[in-house]
Amino acid sequence: MFSGAQLSLYPMSDDFVGIIIGSLSALDPYRDACRIETDDVSTLLVGPPDQLFPAMRDFHAAASQGGVHCVLSATVSRGCPGEPDDPICAGTDGIAADDVPLADRVSNALKAVREAPITGQPVAAQFSLYPLGADRHMGEIYACIDFLKGSGVFDRSKHFCTKLRGDAGSVFAAVGQAFLAFGGTAERHVALDLTVSANSPSAT
Amino acid sequence: MFSGAQLSLYPMSDDFVGIIIGSLSALDPYRDACRIETDDVSTLLVGPPDQLFPAMRDFHAAASQGGVHCVLSATVSRGCPGEPDDPICAGTDGIAADDVPLADRVSNALKAVREAPITGQPVAAQFSLYPLGADRHMGEIYACIDFLKGSGVFDRSKHFCTKLRGDAGSVFAAVGQAFLAFGGTAERHVALDLTVSANSPSAT
Repeated sequence: MFSGAQLSLYPMSDDFVGIIIGSLSALDPYRDACRIETDDVSTLLVGPPDQLFPAMRDFHAAASQGGVHCVLSATVSRGCPGEPDDPICAGTDGIAADDVPLADRVSNALKAVREAPITGQPVAAQFSLYPLGADRHMGEIYACIDFLKGSGVFDRSKHFCTKLRGDAGSVFAAVGQAFLAFGGTAERHVALDLTVSANSPSAT
Repeated sequence: MFSGAQLSLYPMSDDFVGIIIGSLSALDPYRDACRIETDDVSTLLVGPPDQLFPAMRDFHAAASQGGVHCVLSATVSRGCPGEPDDPICAGTDGIAADDVPLADRVSNALKAVREAPITGQPVAAQFSLYPLGADRHMGEIYACIDFLKGSGVFDRSKHFCTKLRGDAGSVFAAVGQAFLAFGGTAERHVALDLTVSANSPSAT
């Protein structure tokens, strides 16, 4: 399997270069598990699917802790049939197996959110889940929305996406669970696009 | 049908609020055709699918023209079965019909990019196309990549996305054609996520 993310960090500050560079060390704990490459538009993170959201959480939290309005945007993918298998992505920890009943997937995902570390950084987030190559993709999406409504960080449904609000630890855990437990099994192609915003002056 | 985008504009500047507010008038020509609503994370644009990319182009160009590093990020969707039909989205101009052969779709899309207005603003962009509810979604994606390689703005294939580079007029036209001509017919559910960057200090 191949899994990873193209992520970008947008500090709304004249010092955006300094803030981005100063936050890169937050990715150091993930460098053994993940391959990381950067160009002028995004940073590629390739690694086990359960490592992607904690890495993005820590990178965004490091950039946001000074109070600057800071957005992380990411395209996350697993199981794309057009990508080569990569040993660094080995392990499907957290991806719900085919024979796990929906009710158990929901309760396991809720438990993972409850047990997520609290960061102290409030965020708003929105994301869309794309289970690909399946003719009943809306079923997975509706099940995921049901999970989110009980997650404690559900803000509201919007057109094309679901909006969350809460501590960054809980929010990233909830989006991670959506990706791992509701897109389909490890053989499926699942994509997710994510926006996480901290310190917005227009946050309510 | 329901079509639209959740878009966000990220000026990397202490004056991000002023730049965003100062660029909103670029959307005025689209206000008759589209419904526009804003919250703290994104702006919803609902309207005919062929209006979405010109509107985003003009909004991003207005924010970028002062030279600030400015990114537009968007989740674009058409035909989602979970969204209500909306009369404002009526019209399927530009969506390739079921009986148009692939070669004709490619040549029509290339013609649309050649005829797109030139803005004078260079950009880098990357995007992912998600044809949903189909068991052969990779076929549409590969056909779209073939089109992009001939479009004059193809930069390179990246993991999970395709990167473009060129004048904003041509780049937004190419992404718009990917959305309209390669995701499937007007009855299909197609999503696309898009990142467009101008004035990056690390652009090559």
